[in-house]
Amino acid sequence: MIITSKKAIMFVLSKIEGAVLMAKRGMLIVLSGPSGVGKGTVRKALFEDPEVDFNYSISMTTRNPREGEKNGVDYYFVSKEQFEENIKNGEMLEYAKYVDNYYGTPLNYVNEQLNAGHDVFLEVEVNGALQVRANCPDGVFIFLTPPDIKELRSRLVGRGTDDLEVINKRIQKASKEIRMMQNYDYAIVNDKIKNAVEQIKDIVKSERLKVNRVMPDYLDSLGDEI
Amino acid sequence: MIITSKKAIMFVLSKIEGAVLMAKRGMLIVLSGPSGVGKGTVRKALFEDPEVDFNYSISMTTRNPREGEKNGVDYYFVSKEQFEENIKNGEMLEYAKYVDNYYGTPLNYVNEQLNAGHDVFLEVEVNGALQVRANCPDGVFIFLTPPDIKELRSRLVGRGTDDLEVINKRIQKASKEIRMMQNYDYAIVNDKIKNAVEQIKDIVKSERLKVNRVMPDYLDSLGDEI
Repeated sequence: MIITSKKAIMFVLSKIEGAVLMAKRGMLIVLSGPSGVGKGTVRKALFEDPEVDFNYSISMTTRNPREGEKNGVDYYFVSKEQFEENIKNGEMLEYAKYVDNYYGTPLNYVNEQLNAGHDVFLEVEVNGALQVRANCPDGVFIFLTPPDIKELRSRLVGRGTDDLEVINKRIQKASKEIRMMQNYDYAIVNDKIKNAVEQIKDIVKSERLKVNRVMPDYLDSLGDEI
Repeated sequence: MIITSKKAIMFVLSKIEGAVLMAKRGMLIVLSGPSGVGKGTVRKALFEDPEVDFNYSISMTTRNPREGEKNGVDYYFVSKEQFEENIKNGEMLEYAKYVDNYYGTPLNYVNEQLNAGHDVFLEVEVNGALQVRANCPDGVFIFLTPPDIKELRSRLVGRGTDDLEVINKRIQKASKEIRMMQNYDYAIVNDKIKNAVEQIKDIVKSERLKVNRVMPDYLDSLGDEI
């Protein structure tokens, strides 16, 4: 009798373990922000942190490598024809053209990693982030913002080198940029790189605890027979 | 001319600072979970952590103080009449009756703290959490969950002291409890108290970066004149 019960339980256990072996889909983490805000610097510092346990999706571009840049490390450097072929075949998660060159995120790597249960990190321009959001609404969208207007204004007034018109133009540009944050989940200020890195790590740790991310695993573990 | 511009800027600056002086409303953090999961233990450990910078809202009860419990520290101990008067006057954020005694959260302290811009932490039973959620949908709701079913089942089978019926009853109870997490934002497992404390701290840090929480401040700082 007892052996039968144990067998029954072990059968259920093996089914549960089977379910768990089907890895949970990873989480997509997107860092974006206005151009010049320092996204690349924050991303580099982030991936130098030994605690970071998610993967960076390397962008693809048609621009020429700069000195020291390596294919498959800094970017995937491809021809314009290759890039346009990828676009045509639906192989780009997002892309944009700047000054006659394409920049974008190959879909393949991102999907492979997510399907294998790994979290993937992208650093993209604001238009790219909107494209990713449309395709992957359950991603985590982080906006790297310039310091707030009050601080910017004090700084500009304080240094006393610009007249009111110049100050107002700078303020207007920053104001427009800050309003972009409404398309994101989180906003972090790029004042100190170290802080920005810690905040991204906090966000990722916290997002992994979201009920809508962990609940399917718990429900799986409940099984149908209960 | 330059003086006039500077004056204009200073006027704007003073308006902005006035706006900032109106403190941003604090965040409500609610820890709940099935009875016996260890909410009180986690909460105590949390408030022993020197890094914790939010305030604990002390509950009110009509039960008698146990040895060593102090009024205004462990609970506000009040009479049944007083508690019912509070309910009648709408002075309780949430409350429930267990075994002939009332337990609940006085609304006053929570509101004072939130209005002063301080974040407030509540530890409440699952019914209380639902009441708070109805009144304060932008709170952060954290569910402290028992270990998952797979682990619980292995543990019960492993120790070999319970028969299948007892194991199934335990599993059913835990299964029902785990399903409660769908009413919450985050789920943390109470396996090690230290981990649970760190996870609550991560969630709070991360929630403070949410665009819907920080955006009003940024928009305030933009002012109307830009």
